[in-house]
Amino acid sequence: MYGWRGKILRVDLTSGKIKEENLDPKVARDYIGGRGLGVHYLLKEGDPTCDPLFAENMMIMAAGPLTGTSAPTAARYMVMTKGPLTGAITCSNSGGQFPKEMKWAGLDAILFTGRAKEPVYLWIDQGRAELRPAGHLWGKWVPETTDALLKETDPKARVACIGPAGEKQVLFAAIMNEKDRAAGRSGVGAVMGSKNLKAVVVRGKDAVPIANKDRFAEINNRVLNKFREGVQKMGPSPLSQHGTIGVMTPLVQKFGVFPTQNWQQGQFGGWEAITGQTLTQKYLVKTRACWACPIACARVTKVEEAGFEGEGEGPEFETGFALGALCMVDNLAAITKANYLCNELGLDTISMGGTIACAMELYQRGYLTDKQAGGPVLWGDGKRLVELTRLTGLREGFGDELALGSYRLAEKYGHPELAMVSKKLEMPGYDPRGLQGQGLNYATSPIGASHCRGHMAYCEMVGIPKAVDPHEWKGKGKLVKLWHEVFSIFDASGLCMFFAGRNLVRPELEIYPDGILEYLNAVTGAEYSMDELMKAGERILNAERLFLVRAGFSRKDDSLPSRLISEPHTAGPSAGKVVHLEEMKDEYYRERGWDENGIPTDKKLKELGLN
Amino acid sequence: MYGWRGKILRVDLTSGKIKEENLDPKVARDYIGGRGLGVHYLLKEGDPTCDPLFAENMMIMAAGPLTGTSAPTAARYMVMTKGPLTGAITCSNSGGQFPKEMKWAGLDAILFTGRAKEPVYLWIDQGRAELRPAGHLWGKWVPETTDALLKETDPKARVACIGPAGEKQVLFAAIMNEKDRAAGRSGVGAVMGSKNLKAVVVRGKDAVPIANKDRFAEINNRVLNKFREGVQKMGPSPLSQHGTIGVMTPLVQKFGVFPTQNWQQGQFGGWEAITGQTLTQKYLVKTRACWACPIACARVTKVEEAGFEGEGEGPEFETGFALGALCMVDNLAAITKANYLCNELGLDTISMGGTIACAMELYQRGYLTDKQAGGPVLWGDGKRLVELTRLTGLREGFGDELALGSYRLAEKYGHPELAMVSKKLEMPGYDPRGLQGQGLNYATSPIGASHCRGHMAYCEMVGIPKAVDPHEWKGKGKLVKLWHEVFSIFDASGLCMFFAGRNLVRPELEIYPDGILEYLNAVTGAEYSMDELMKAGERILNAERLFLVRAGFSRKDDSLPSRLISEPHTAGPSAGKVVHLEEMKDEYYRERGWDENGIPTDKKLKELGLN
Repeated sequence: MYGWRGKILRVDLTSGKIKEENLDPKVARDYIGGRGLGVHYLLKEGDPTCDPLFAENMMIMAAGPLTGTSAPTAARYMVMTKGPLTGAITCSNSGGQFPKEMKWAGLDAILFTGRAKEPVYLWIDQGRAELRPAGHLWGKWVPETTDALLKETDPKARVACIGPAGEKQVLFAAIMNEKDRAAGRSGVGAVMGSKNLKAVVVRGKDAVPIANKDRFAEINNRVLNKFREGVQKMGPSPLSQHGTIGVMTPLVQKFGVFPTQNWQQGQFGGWEAITGQTLTQKYLVKTRACWACPIACARVTKVEEAGFEGEGEGPEFETGFALGALCMVDNLAAITKANYLCNELGLDTISMGGTIACAMELYQRGYLTDKQAGGPVLWGDGKRLVELTRLTGLREGFGDELALGSYRLAEKYGHPELAMVSKKLEMPGYDPRGLQGQGLNYATSPIGASHCRGHMAYCEMVGIPKAVDPHEWKGKGKLVKLWHEVFSIFDASGLCMFFAGRNLVRPELEIYPDGILEYLNAVTGAEYSMDELMKAGERILNAERLFLVRAGFSRKDDSLPSRLISEPHTAGPSAGKVVHLEEMKDEYYRERGWDENGIPTDKKLKELGLN
Repeated sequence: MYGWRGKILRVDLTSGKIKEENLDPKVARDYIGGRGLGVHYLLKEGDPTCDPLFAENMMIMAAGPLTGTSAPTAARYMVMTKGPLTGAITCSNSGGQFPKEMKWAGLDAILFTGRAKEPVYLWIDQGRAELRPAGHLWGKWVPETTDALLKETDPKARVACIGPAGEKQVLFAAIMNEKDRAAGRSGVGAVMGSKNLKAVVVRGKDAVPIANKDRFAEINNRVLNKFREGVQKMGPSPLSQHGTIGVMTPLVQKFGVFPTQNWQQGQFGGWEAITGQTLTQKYLVKTRACWACPIACARVTKVEEAGFEGEGEGPEFETGFALGALCMVDNLAAITKANYLCNELGLDTISMGGTIACAMELYQRGYLTDKQAGGPVLWGDGKRLVELTRLTGLREGFGDELALGSYRLAEKYGHPELAMVSKKLEMPGYDPRGLQGQGLNYATSPIGASHCRGHMAYCEMVGIPKAVDPHEWKGKGKLVKLWHEVFSIFDASGLCMFFAGRNLVRPELEIYPDGILEYLNAVTGAEYSMDELMKAGERILNAERLFLVRAGFSRKDDSLPSRLISEPHTAGPSAGKVVHLEEMKDEYYRERGWDENGIPTDKKLKELGLN
């Protein structure tokens, strides 16, 4: 096969048995790869009703056919499992170098089942794979773990591991690769921890075979020349210059959709202190790129301020939003330090910030006392932010309660309405009261509130591929359906949305000649038609929905916090607006061919070969 | 006379006539000086019903018998007039060098009446006094004005002047001496501006005559030795080390009485970023002392951060509170820059911060729009804080509305309840919900909410001279009455409360041997008895009340914002408490010998020789 390596690795942690098997070409074609492969196996072999932290849960690491090729941003892999924070299916996406290494080692996916009696790690050296004891690594933080594993395997290998947060099953623990890249959301790190799997270490030496080298080279030259011309004409892209935090922060502030003080406000007075331009000026050491990426949006930073000393990657926009504006912290040193701790302990920064902000509002309203929280939890307290992040990753003191996420925290203290989540997943930094489509996306995204499974900010804020009215809710059902499918194709192919988002695949979205379709066909030789490709995207969405339905999810779970439905902002560009969720859901379900309760019809499932 | 110079200067600005007259020894003895002299003349010659910004209003600058002597902290003078912000009598207090210079020039007080046709300044060179044209100074900021006046008079002279804020009659404009020392409250600078009086420049060469030099020297040695011993034993006093902002900030935070987000909260998460310790570390250039002061609590600072560059004095605690916590700004550079602008333009920092915080809450609640405010007014926006301060001092754009103070601003936008004032004067940085006595003090202080006419934090927080329960309201009526009298003696004698507060004058308050009584008798030879001195304090209070009553004030005006009466904090040490104001007022009036409507009885007035 081309693009695909045609190989799946099965690792049963209970028995310790490892088995390699061939990838079914029809499955590859129908599900593309990455996220698609993950849901295929989860649906076929996983148990949607299982406790995510029990041995019965299945965890899959999967790359796409483009992953590891030299196509721009072809650096992504997906972790698929049933998320412990949400109880929903999840696909947690990361870049860096580990995914490329996995592909070069000859694998499209790794399927983990069961639970090891003792801590272990998986070492894959080209063809060979073995489970090794990891007792000596248990308790170690991410950087220490990574360095130790490179020593005892191969300095050229790549490591994806968990930190103390994953070991202790913090419900929003992440899987970290190359120390700072995170498969962050839904608690995939806790699943790894529950399996006693400390790390996966991979060394790969075989480049991904390309079906049509000339065609691939021609496309790549065209795309990269276009990128270089852009840089020559307009200078480096904002993403390259100041990272995600530099691009999005001023934009959400301008639109009045920058969630502030646990979503009580839509603009943050301290925004300029926590934007990318400030980060560049104060703490930037250098930029860093994932495999094959010409953008290099990652920020390597260093903070020397007393109490906040550290070095690492970040913060990204989502981190600046969650640990910053949401908590009313405009101390960039504190935010960056808390970010370092999230990376070192293995925590999702969005859920960490969202949970602390929730605690701050519980405290503000007197539902949470000093005694219960081990001291004040005050808006804008950067020092406390850092302390609570550390306590959460180690599950010490009040951190042991924060470790369960904002929904369980708010529920425990009698006010679940203060948890700003959908499907118990903390929402990213775009207030749906000013972006109707993003609201529908959060509510209907299969994994819970996510901006990575269909980012409506592209058309509602940035105008990519074309601008739509962010306050209009009519027609958003149809649009979100399309974006959900387009993003599932990004996630399945192995490209990053920052590049793929500019290479869309539907005429009505102004298709670019350098689209994903071209790349897929050049690399795999599968000669997908556009309809076939979009059908694959739709198949992935419906397969995920089927998993959710079997897990007990339905329309009632496609929800948003009441604050977004009934509490309009009083100030700023999004003042007076609330999310028209139910109307948009009706349209979305209709477009999907689901019934009004959000259940896929037999007709639709048959059409997609899912029954 | 000793201590007193026995001379009053009368300056009628309408006619330009200047007349010197003798100070009546009985008036001096009965009213001591400073604040006492001021109220005596205002009551006798002023019109309580006049418009404060019309020529009819009288403005008095008065020093005390101790002012200009070498008694520790004997550096204060008072500006007395009818305040344009409040419509109440006011006494605005400042230190530095100007008051000493006035005494050394042979004057106890200067009485200004009328209004000059053209801008003028008063130049007093020892005995001689003249009005000079000031057209060439009009529009100039405080530092420029001060430097120009020293050039055209005497480099050794001292200048008290107004900036653009006073000229444009910002209702909380200050009178600045030595550039950075402020007679800040109630808008005394606007009165000076309404009189076309740009400045008063004084040069004095005769030391203040002391009645009993040996006794004075003995007291001074004892007091200063005790002070020095303290420094040797316990190190420099916190006030010397980190200023008022270093002493009070951690304390109000600890007590949960640090007014935050326009008094919506009682603790500020960003407090550590704006405390004196941080100021010392980041911006302190040197400390500065007023005349004869061994403490030197003033901070000379310098900020180099882009957009906030400047140099000057401050911030004091009240400034850090008002421009910081109240606005949720924890950017110390922005706070300090706004402080510099207040000094340079001639603005009261408490009212400036209180008014901006009020605008922020009006904006947050949607009562004030972007269009009306010329853009967002967001919590924590340090850059906007600086911009609005400048606009206010120059009365440009939205600043022209802020220039009227929080009460008129909140009323204009339909929500006077959001103005955190008493008698329309913005409250200083101590939340009465956690300090009952301070609440009664704010409500009954003759000039409106002030901490300088009877600072209950001494006993309710610091335990000077002895600790009382801050949450107990019974007995506070009696205590506040006593403190009002004690403080009127500080204000009349010319001492600073930071020193005088440790030298109280009543046995039940643990009188110190080195009390004010001793100093007054050694300096003046008047041989006051303790009862006579306390009676003088009571006389001053009642004379001020008489002025208020004639201006139409009564019990209804001894009020606090409804927020303090009906909205308890939900978190922190003061959670669940509200101010028991009416009960405390009943007790206060009883103790004062006033009727239940707060009107002094004939019996009381006769007893004090006020009818």
